[in-house]
Amino acid sequence: MREASLKAWLLGTLLATAGACATLARAVTPASEPAPIKPLTAAQLEGARALRERAMTDDVGYEFLRSLTSEVGPRPAGSVGYDRAVSWALAKLKALGFSNVHAESVWVPHWVRGEARAEIVSPSPQPLLPTALGGCPSTPPEGIEGEVLPVTTLEELVALPPSRVRGKIVFFDQRMERTRDSGGYSRAVTPRGRGAWTADSMGAVAMVMRHAGTGNDRLPHTGAQTRDHGVLRVPGMALSNPDADLLEQQVASGRPVRLRLWSTSHWADSVHTANVVGEIPARDSRSFIVVGGHLDSWDLGTGAHDDGAGLAIVTASAKLIAQANPRPKRAVRVVFFANEEFGLNGARAYARAHMDELPRCVLGMESDLGAYAPWGLECRVPVDYLPLVRSMLGVVEPLGIEFAGNQAGGGADVGQLRERGVPVMEVDTDAAPYFDLHHSANDTFDKIDPELLRRNIAVFASIAYLATQAESGVGRLEIKKP
Amino acid sequence: MREASLKAWLLGTLLATAGACATLARAVTPASEPAPIKPLTAAQLEGARALRERAMTDDVGYEFLRSLTSEVGPRPAGSVGYDRAVSWALAKLKALGFSNVHAESVWVPHWVRGEARAEIVSPSPQPLLPTALGGCPSTPPEGIEGEVLPVTTLEELVALPPSRVRGKIVFFDQRMERTRDSGGYSRAVTPRGRGAWTADSMGAVAMVMRHAGTGNDRLPHTGAQTRDHGVLRVPGMALSNPDADLLEQQVASGRPVRLRLWSTSHWADSVHTANVVGEIPARDSRSFIVVGGHLDSWDLGTGAHDDGAGLAIVTASAKLIAQANPRPKRAVRVVFFANEEFGLNGARAYARAHMDELPRCVLGMESDLGAYAPWGLECRVPVDYLPLVRSMLGVVEPLGIEFAGNQAGGGADVGQLRERGVPVMEVDTDAAPYFDLHHSANDTFDKIDPELLRRNIAVFASIAYLATQAESGVGRLEIKKP
Repeated sequence: MREASLKAWLLGTLLATAGACATLARAVTPASEPAPIKPLTAAQLEGARALRERAMTDDVGYEFLRSLTSEVGPRPAGSVGYDRAVSWALAKLKALGFSNVHAESVWVPHWVRGEARAEIVSPSPQPLLPTALGGCPSTPPEGIEGEVLPVTTLEELVALPPSRVRGKIVFFDQRMERTRDSGGYSRAVTPRGRGAWTADSMGAVAMVMRHAGTGNDRLPHTGAQTRDHGVLRVPGMALSNPDADLLEQQVASGRPVRLRLWSTSHWADSVHTANVVGEIPARDSRSFIVVGGHLDSWDLGTGAHDDGAGLAIVTASAKLIAQANPRPKRAVRVVFFANEEFGLNGARAYARAHMDELPRCVLGMESDLGAYAPWGLECRVPVDYLPLVRSMLGVVEPLGIEFAGNQAGGGADVGQLRERGVPVMEVDTDAAPYFDLHHSANDTFDKIDPELLRRNIAVFASIAYLATQAESGVGRLEIKKP
Repeated sequence: MREASLKAWLLGTLLATAGACATLARAVTPASEPAPIKPLTAAQLEGARALRERAMTDDVGYEFLRSLTSEVGPRPAGSVGYDRAVSWALAKLKALGFSNVHAESVWVPHWVRGEARAEIVSPSPQPLLPTALGGCPSTPPEGIEGEVLPVTTLEELVALPPSRVRGKIVFFDQRMERTRDSGGYSRAVTPRGRGAWTADSMGAVAMVMRHAGTGNDRLPHTGAQTRDHGVLRVPGMALSNPDADLLEQQVASGRPVRLRLWSTSHWADSVHTANVVGEIPARDSRSFIVVGGHLDSWDLGTGAHDDGAGLAIVTASAKLIAQANPRPKRAVRVVFFANEEFGLNGARAYARAHMDELPRCVLGMESDLGAYAPWGLECRVPVDYLPLVRSMLGVVEPLGIEFAGNQAGGGADVGQLRERGVPVMEVDTDAAPYFDLHHSANDTFDKIDPELLRRNIAVFASIAYLATQAESGVGRLEIKKP
């Protein structure tokens, strides 16, 4: 994928250098529109540079995030905390001067975290500090005990004869690799989604996993287990790296290791709640861009990086764009999606409800990888628009941003728009420190570096601003067939 | 104190340079013994250097610690874990070839940690993740609620009119400073010992404090509250820095902040348990040195640094000394003390039981500040023995060790021997990273750097070895009057 996108990029640069080469461009991407693509004007680029500088001294994002984490805090789907987040967001966007601030109806599932406990029973009894994964059911009051069956991957588990799995507690012991992009996470997260399901299908009584997180503190990362097949029957829990080390150590002793797990988590009725939307209007155009993040968070921390930071970045960016000169030609619509973490209900509801106007949505941009150092600009646009992206990139290159390919997914929420033809762009941030705290109790406001948050806003806002200016837009994507 | 010790040190160096100046030395410390102090021989110093080098490739300490943390884990005073630790230690010392391995009777108090919970009730409801401090009583099932009264220090609390304290939950909000020595900790820890007592005496219903710990993870550090006055009536809990920040943030809003606390901790009957002792015997001498650490740990982590590392350091050191050439002239007695953390019962029992033979105890050395980089050698010896200490220091200077004064306390446990006339020496380690995890769930084996552990052992063992060799010993201290 990276290689393909690099080729496309090189081609784009070539096109830009050679000037108008529409014939060649059409030869490569026959589906692209024939109208010549207008480059950004010097005034527009200068406006973006000025905005970028203003962002570096602006504290709207940081104060937004302080307020969210202190006054709302944890806000998982279906919780009272999420309801408070909706009220807070409506009030905050109004206070910041957004137009047309409103809530849009969404139904979300409601999983209630209870207590989760785990204990190595033998050979050397020790308590562990697990976290229940999203969807974990409760256990009988006396817990569930079983012998630990260590495996590394789902593939390894599936390859075992079910007789070896029956009655066991499957332990996925795969250590997440620390990477600058989210590749380490993508590789580590598989057992979280399907591990307990697969274990159950093979007769296991529970699943524990070394969490999909880096770092060596004893705060395990939670996250979703798939809901595709209904309601899980066996508990799925995650262990921090030190706890997984301890279990691994006892397994390495060669003696059978028995574990006991307790959970009081359970499902409650689905809840009617909302996405929150606000706008920076444009005078002369009905077209708009969407900038979004998710308003829900996991419940262990206060959702500072995930995704309070994303909301701060899109909100502060929209505010800066409102004040930019030349003024934005297209509206900027800020969308705070409901329940990204456990089902994408908000994003799906939004895409369905706004299907008719998506042709007027010129670009989608999501921020949902924390607020560590931004380093890349990724996009998914028709290849003949790459020269335009390149000129946008020029504005943020002084902040250390490099081109990161034309294969952007758009993010979990805005990806729903991409599948419906809306081009997307993403600012890549440093994922290496992010997965030390992602989905854990450690995701709190003190972990936000105000300077890095400003730099993220500067990059995001500059790009989004230029998307409101670009006369030709950034094209349309092929619509994914359902 | 530092200045006084520096002067003494300079004087000692002077004496060494000038050769024998017994008259001057006596003039400064008239109580010191008149016999000339024999310097260490070239062979002894060479033996120490060889031992130092061997330590740097030796894994006895690291494997000892892996075994303790994996096979025993948490071992607070009075717990089943501590009993297991005693059995483990007896077996381990025997397996390592120690002589005269035995347990010595100690009674310890038994505080049982239950669940601790805390919640900001208003203005913005949020859960906190507190830890009960040692001695915390239980609350009624519905918890205890009160308005938060923020103060910085005990002095500030005491200066308030009791009418302002009555019914409140006192919040000590003093941030611990990160320092290389343990000074930051000493200053931050005061409210932990006496905060809840003082709050209670002024009519408060509970006490919470920003924990005596550095770092920004959400794992609060526990620790002892004083038992001098009996059994506490009001809960005392500690909050991690992010949680204290959150509480501080809500306090800063200017609106009254209400907190609710729940605790199921309680006291149980005192427990009869043991110190564990083993020896490296010496052929020709009845004199000995004591090297010790504490076998108990707080219950949240596995006591890897505190004080598993100390035990590993003294045990591996003693083993290295046993193999040194020239052979040790004095015995090395390894003592694993019971309940350092919550009353020093083991150290007091040891000092009482061995009172008669303390005149034959030439030196006490304790290791109880983790296994980060060693940087200093501290001692408490009569001033005319400082030249001898200086020649010992020469052996470990290549490992970056500097002289750190002649005011060593000896450590919490071995300090009991110092008060009875036994000179002491301490290896100072880097306390800056240590207090990120000290007394918290994060004190686990993965935090041990094997190379730094070896370096600690190299320094500790070299010094202890030379103390077994020094013909004149290192003097006696004045006995503290009871």
